[in-house]
Amino acid sequence: MTKSQSTPAAKTRLSRRGLLGLVGAGVVGAGVGLGIDRAVVSAVAAEASAADSSGAASTYPFYGAHQSGITTAAQDRLHFASFDVSDITRSDLIGLLKDWTAAAARMTEGKTVGDGAVSGPLAAPQDDTGEALGLPPAGLTITFGFGPSLFDHRFGLATKRPAALIDLPHFAGDMLDPALVGGDLCIQACSDDPQVAVHAIRNLSRIAFGRASIRWSQLGFGRTSSTTRAQATPRNLFGFKDGTANVKAEDRTVVDEHVWVPTEDSPAWMSGGSYLVSRKIRMNIEPWDRSALGEQQRVIGRTKGDGAPLSGGSEFTEPDFAKKHDSALAIDADAHVRLAHPTHNHGAVLLRRGYNFVDGNDDLGQLNAGLFFIAFQRDPRTQFVAIQLRLAGNDAMNEYIQHVGSGIFAVPPGARRGSYVGAGLFES
Amino acid sequence: MTKSQSTPAAKTRLSRRGLLGLVGAGVVGAGVGLGIDRAVVSAVAAEASAADSSGAASTYPFYGAHQSGITTAAQDRLHFASFDVSDITRSDLIGLLKDWTAAAARMTEGKTVGDGAVSGPLAAPQDDTGEALGLPPAGLTITFGFGPSLFDHRFGLATKRPAALIDLPHFAGDMLDPALVGGDLCIQACSDDPQVAVHAIRNLSRIAFGRASIRWSQLGFGRTSSTTRAQATPRNLFGFKDGTANVKAEDRTVVDEHVWVPTEDSPAWMSGGSYLVSRKIRMNIEPWDRSALGEQQRVIGRTKGDGAPLSGGSEFTEPDFAKKHDSALAIDADAHVRLAHPTHNHGAVLLRRGYNFVDGNDDLGQLNAGLFFIAFQRDPRTQFVAIQLRLAGNDAMNEYIQHVGSGIFAVPPGARRGSYVGAGLFES
Repeated sequence: MTKSQSTPAAKTRLSRRGLLGLVGAGVVGAGVGLGIDRAVVSAVAAEASAADSSGAASTYPFYGAHQSGITTAAQDRLHFASFDVSDITRSDLIGLLKDWTAAAARMTEGKTVGDGAVSGPLAAPQDDTGEALGLPPAGLTITFGFGPSLFDHRFGLATKRPAALIDLPHFAGDMLDPALVGGDLCIQACSDDPQVAVHAIRNLSRIAFGRASIRWSQLGFGRTSSTTRAQATPRNLFGFKDGTANVKAEDRTVVDEHVWVPTEDSPAWMSGGSYLVSRKIRMNIEPWDRSALGEQQRVIGRTKGDGAPLSGGSEFTEPDFAKKHDSALAIDADAHVRLAHPTHNHGAVLLRRGYNFVDGNDDLGQLNAGLFFIAFQRDPRTQFVAIQLRLAGNDAMNEYIQHVGSGIFAVPPGARRGSYVGAGLFES
Repeated sequence: MTKSQSTPAAKTRLSRRGLLGLVGAGVVGAGVGLGIDRAVVSAVAAEASAADSSGAASTYPFYGAHQSGITTAAQDRLHFASFDVSDITRSDLIGLLKDWTAAAARMTEGKTVGDGAVSGPLAAPQDDTGEALGLPPAGLTITFGFGPSLFDHRFGLATKRPAALIDLPHFAGDMLDPALVGGDLCIQACSDDPQVAVHAIRNLSRIAFGRASIRWSQLGFGRTSSTTRAQATPRNLFGFKDGTANVKAEDRTVVDEHVWVPTEDSPAWMSGGSYLVSRKIRMNIEPWDRSALGEQQRVIGRTKGDGAPLSGGSEFTEPDFAKKHDSALAIDADAHVRLAHPTHNHGAVLLRRGYNFVDGNDDLGQLNAGLFFIAFQRDPRTQFVAIQLRLAGNDAMNEYIQHVGSGIFAVPPGARRGSYVGAGLFES
């Protein structure tokens, strides 16, 4: 994924006062559409605000071989939504995907949905809800996926369901809330500005009105897995670094082997796509906080300070699972790092892209918090499922977590300009 | 409020690799406390990451004449929590406030709670939960308040209750959820990084274990009111600029008259303090999004584009409430801007410091979203209550909002170094 300055933003030179006068005149007066879009307003705002950080105006391409938001350097904020499709026809569904594609392409460029921007006729609702006006693109990516239930009898897709798009098995300890599971479609919106991510989901949900509605959704912050070497490893709400051994976008060979669906896999319309597994993992914050540092480190298998494996070295040292201190294993037999490690899972790895969440507090006055786990992979059967079956039965961390939500989605390749996301599914 | 670089951060020069090796050795080895704190880790992280924005390392003073987080330039993220005090003694309560003060002072400097940092004895829980290690202070402010219910029989404070700390009246249209109302104590944590704000509330809640527990809490993003002239006016989830006419920190005379409790007001321990009113305002997003631009502008009384009053001009032009277009008032008789304006409220103004919120979605697949309104003032009786009584009965916006949560808190002046927040209440 290339990262570039927003072209419209870079090209524009207007004073804030001048622009606002112009917009004001258009709106207060005859209400004539001026075609001023978010990118232009953004450019002015960016010039006016020296406090804005370097990446604020960055944009990622919507069209391309792969969808953005997978190997893209993980942004800081997430708004994820799963949708149920309403009682509509196959062609209505295609229409929705076309509308979503057009809107997503505009928003990732920092533009409003539709041309009307902040003007347009006074007698009609606007195409865009407006709360992202003046905000830079902030690295927005919008990634679409198809759930297993989309491939039932409704849309003539039953024979198209990829074998890899399985129904996830029950894992030991699962405490799934049916309201937080599944969905026909999903949208992952990531941005460095929560208001930009929320604006994207809100407007896509609005576009879907009458055709699909949100089944469940999740806001997240503080990426819990770096996806490029340039990013420092962030910490999850257990206070530990998370994602040290994650797949990094720079490792092209690893990404090609483990993340993207290759042309030899079936079906062909998923070539260049990936499979997304999401798990809402509630952390038992208070018991964790009351546990001793030694216990926490035993559970994880790494030090809390720098994230080094307990077998020694520093963060990026490979764990030595055989090493003993005195007569005991340095890394516990049930430690998370051991059970999740590729060497104990037939080489299986995941590109993780999860986020921390805090959904207020529960009735006991404890934080309702945890990790919204997202992973991309070539085949969930040999990757997420294989790893999770191992973790669910044995991971020492299970004492401190519960899986309460779950989703699996086929993420098709990127759309070609002039086409729409998932076109291959309907036209093959 | 002065804004300065974190002193410890500015002083430290250590390579990231060197520091992590040091920490690792301490933790993996004998578990000896090294006294390395967040500020040091932050400094290293800040040096390592050129992508970090200019304001990330900024700190605001915790001790001082006023508490920070009131006239402080509004940060981008909020974590607010209301607490119920448990069945404890007056001296336990004082102990809690002392512990909170010490921890808050450290965290706003970018330090961990307690000295142990990422090391400390393996056999004990740590003072700090760790998820903010490596993050800069990010402008963290922590602001404490006392609710009316604290002044009952339990702590000998019944005679100390300020007359201005009223029980808020019922307002027309209120749909308050009792679980989202009131509280003995409140903490407002604001930061430019949500993980830093969440870390603050989590650790203060942990410190309170057995003494107070969270009654309700709220995360917010995208400040909805600028509090300094340097800040551009942000947009709320209605897509309109919000806070154009807000009190600005630079207007010292206005702040002194309308925000800080003056020495002539009673009681003396509130001198230099302020009163916080919070209202969780759910927005009916979908009906709003379906309404025409003209209707939205009529409701607000301003243009959506640049926020100019419908009587003409640009954002900061004073509304002309008498002006007519043809024979109709340019600004509707029930428009929000008219009813909320000081000229229609005996000159009453508020320092607003609210945040947008999205709490997932409701059962209908619609965003559970709105505005978490926070306002500071010298006297709620003549300010928030007077204005809200007027708005609740007549504001055209009422069709699109519901007030579902509410709080009022006496925010004492800032603590003196060596003392604790609210000391005047207990020692006067």
